[in-house]
Amino acid sequence: MKFTREDIDTEELDRRRALYGPLTAAVRDLVDATIRTEVDEAVIREVEATVVAATAKLRARQIDGGFGMRFTADGESIAWGNAGIGLRNAIAPPLVIESDDAGLHWTEVTLGAAYEGPPGLVHGGICALVMDHLLGTTASSIEPRFTGTLTLRYRRGTPLGPLRAEARIDRNEGRKTIVVGTLSDDLGVTVEAEGIFIGPATQN
Amino acid sequence: MKFTREDIDTEELDRRRALYGPLTAAVRDLVDATIRTEVDEAVIREVEATVVAATAKLRARQIDGGFGMRFTADGESIAWGNAGIGLRNAIAPPLVIESDDAGLHWTEVTLGAAYEGPPGLVHGGICALVMDHLLGTTASSIEPRFTGTLTLRYRRGTPLGPLRAEARIDRNEGRKTIVVGTLSDDLGVTVEAEGIFIGPATQN
Repeated sequence: MKFTREDIDTEELDRRRALYGPLTAAVRDLVDATIRTEVDEAVIREVEATVVAATAKLRARQIDGGFGMRFTADGESIAWGNAGIGLRNAIAPPLVIESDDAGLHWTEVTLGAAYEGPPGLVHGGICALVMDHLLGTTASSIEPRFTGTLTLRYRRGTPLGPLRAEARIDRNEGRKTIVVGTLSDDLGVTVEAEGIFIGPATQN
Repeated sequence: MKFTREDIDTEELDRRRALYGPLTAAVRDLVDATIRTEVDEAVIREVEATVVAATAKLRARQIDGGFGMRFTADGESIAWGNAGIGLRNAIAPPLVIESDDAGLHWTEVTLGAAYEGPPGLVHGGICALVMDHLLGTTASSIEPRFTGTLTLRYRRGTPLGPLRAEARIDRNEGRKTIVVGTLSDDLGVTVEAEGIFIGPATQN
């Protein structure tokens, strides 16, 4: 797997965050506008040409393949290409995962038009993306673990808008860690999730 | 839920497809370049300003909220905002789902940098998005059904690149339809999925 060490200090990391964060936020906003726009055909064509030209400028120098996972000399991870949390990934909402001393992990996120499945509702697969990422982070809070099995119970539709997901380790069984969690809107739980996570040593 | 009938004919539908498809493809390409670019700060800033201005042009006239689900007078569905298959959604790969007379449903898709989780591998939640959408479409091939439970077994990491997902109805139990499927790379199965789908009438 592509783990890269970047010999940069905190100041340089902050500089890059301030550089790439706003670009990615602008692209996220463009993704949303592309779905919702009703402007005339001429404007659509003009914007398309603009986007193609802008992309060519970015591609003048670029890495091969995915961003991979990078670490600073201090061991801080830079998962900026990640589809769940990536600072440079406009597909990622991005999720910001918090935790407390009791082991509860949670994220609060507002999902808009780009995450729609059934009309007005979050796509079931996007609910799965949020829960997979949150449960995986929870399982890996002590040491890295990979998803073995993920089970999602959809209790009702999850409306687009502000949501909260929570997770905690339920129990450990040998090298397996079982994590449970929920996705909720302000009326309560919409999706229940359970994940079985496995340490790398026992992975097939 | 937001179901809208659009009084447009096939010709107008084709015109819109040819208008919005290329715009969205350009935005997808920009999402990828945003992750992978290594150009200088000045170019990044310039592209950011260009994207912000382009987005403002698109937002001059736009719908409120999500795209919803629309139908033509002929009953053809227009799920263009959908996070799995949406023609206007740059988050969607987009999936193109095919089926045969025997009930097999499949999709072939190439997932790049924007879908990364662990280095070089597809994010587990993106695997879930693909399988949720494919299994849901398979379950709904006769009448609409909603996901009750989705279980994903991750057998090994799914590499970024060309993938194939397949699904078929395993059995019906009353109003429940059980669908099974797999996600595979050219070396074989990476993820197994099982979904229990429920007709709207029995949903809570």
